[in-house]
Formats: sequence, structure tokens, C-alpha cells
Amino acid sequence: MSSEWFARTPKPPYYAVIFTSQRNAEGTEAYAETADRMAELATRQPGYLGVETTRDAEGFGITVSYWRDEASILAWRNQVEHAVARKLGRTEWYAKFELRVARVERAYGAPTGDSASE
Amino acid sequence: MSSEWFARTPKPPYYAVIFTSQRNAEGTEAYAETADRMAELATRQPGYLGVETTRDAEGFGITVSYWRDEASILAWRNQVEHAVARKLGRTEWYAKFELRVARVERAYGAPTGDSASE
Repeated sequence: MSSEWFARTPKPPYYAVIFTSQRNAEGTEAYAETADRMAELATRQPGYLGVETTRDAEGFGITVSYWRDEASILAWRNQVEHAVARKLGRTEWYAKFELRVARVERAYGAPTGDSASE
Repeated sequence: MSSEWFARTPKPPYYAVIFTSQRNAEGTEAYAETADRMAELATRQPGYLGVETTRDAEGFGITVSYWRDEASILAWRNQVEHAVARKLGRTEWYAKFELRVARVERAYGAPTGDSASE
């Protein structure tokens, strides 16, 4: 069961960074290593609430990370190792990407009982 | 090239509905038909701005639909055929899901020039 792929977020409000990307065919191994490293580093950041991520067979992916507030997002953006990885992403690994910062205002899910969703 | 998989959203603010789901093994064909139908119906709704969707080989998916305002989201939620499909999703097709409604406050992407991103 993959319920661990769902982020266990608190009751809103909190923030979401929606990162939509198309991978190119470059650097598969280096990309995977960097993605794993960034996922691990993010968990150590103040205000980190969780992440949900998926990518299909054509390399189109969506990653949504959840944060307590805008300050937490900014601090992660400025984390040194993450800044290097983002530059590699832009120049080497992504054919295209879009990033959106959004304030989560309400949430619900099913089955209920294992998160703070309404 | 898959740039058509990216939503061509306007400048923020606007709204995002982040739908994270784990598919079970049931009803593959009926599910695909319904998903296609809902994608097509959504484009006819007032305030619809676009959608981005992906699902990996393990059936974990993220769909983000974009809307002008909360009223547009509510109207789509109450659309009759969509309400039937949502009930089928809850009872038949998803092992688990989470839905979050968020207000997009800023956005950017690369390469630039083909959307209203900052």
C-alpha cells in the first residue's frame, strides 16, 4: 500500500509549491540521485510539511511540496545545495517546467482518519 | 514535445485544485473513459483555466486543475455528471485520495515566452 506517498499535512491554511516538469533524456542516474538527495534535505528544513510526487512514462511529472508559510519556502529556495540542484535542473534535466506557489485554503480526503484533513 | 501538457494559465492570482490519488486495480477501461469525459466537460465550465495531470506505473497520480475563482470550482463540483463520476471514484476506483483547494499567488517557468508566467 502506498499511503506513505500521501503527505500528512495539517489543517489549512498552509502553502503548496506545485512543480510541473517535463524531463528530457539526459542524466538519468545523476538526476535520480539529486532528486533523492533534495527530498531528504527538504525534510530537514524548518516548516516542511511533506511532499507528493509522481512522473509518468513520458517523463511528465508533478511534485507538490507543502510548507508552513512563505518564509519556509523562501528558506528552502535559498538553501545552498538546493540552489545548485535547481540550476542543474534548469540547464540539464528539464525540457520545460512551471512552478506555482499557492496558499492551501481547504482540504479533504478519503478514507479519512489518517490525516488532519477536514 | 509535450508542452501541451502544461496549462497555459494567466498571471496570478487564480485557484488550483490539487487532487492526489491512488488508483486501485478496478475498472481500468471505465475509469479511463470517465476521466477523458470529465477532462472534456471541465473545459466547458466557466472559469476553467487548464489542467495538468500525471500518474506513475504504480497508479499514484496528481491532477492539478486551474480555475479563475472559488465560484468556478464550486460550479464544477456541482455539475451533475461530474458529481456522479466523483461518487464512482470514491466508491470504485480510488484506494485513497486527497483534494486541496489553493490560491495561486505567484508563478514562473522556463523556457518562458509561451505563457503568462512571470
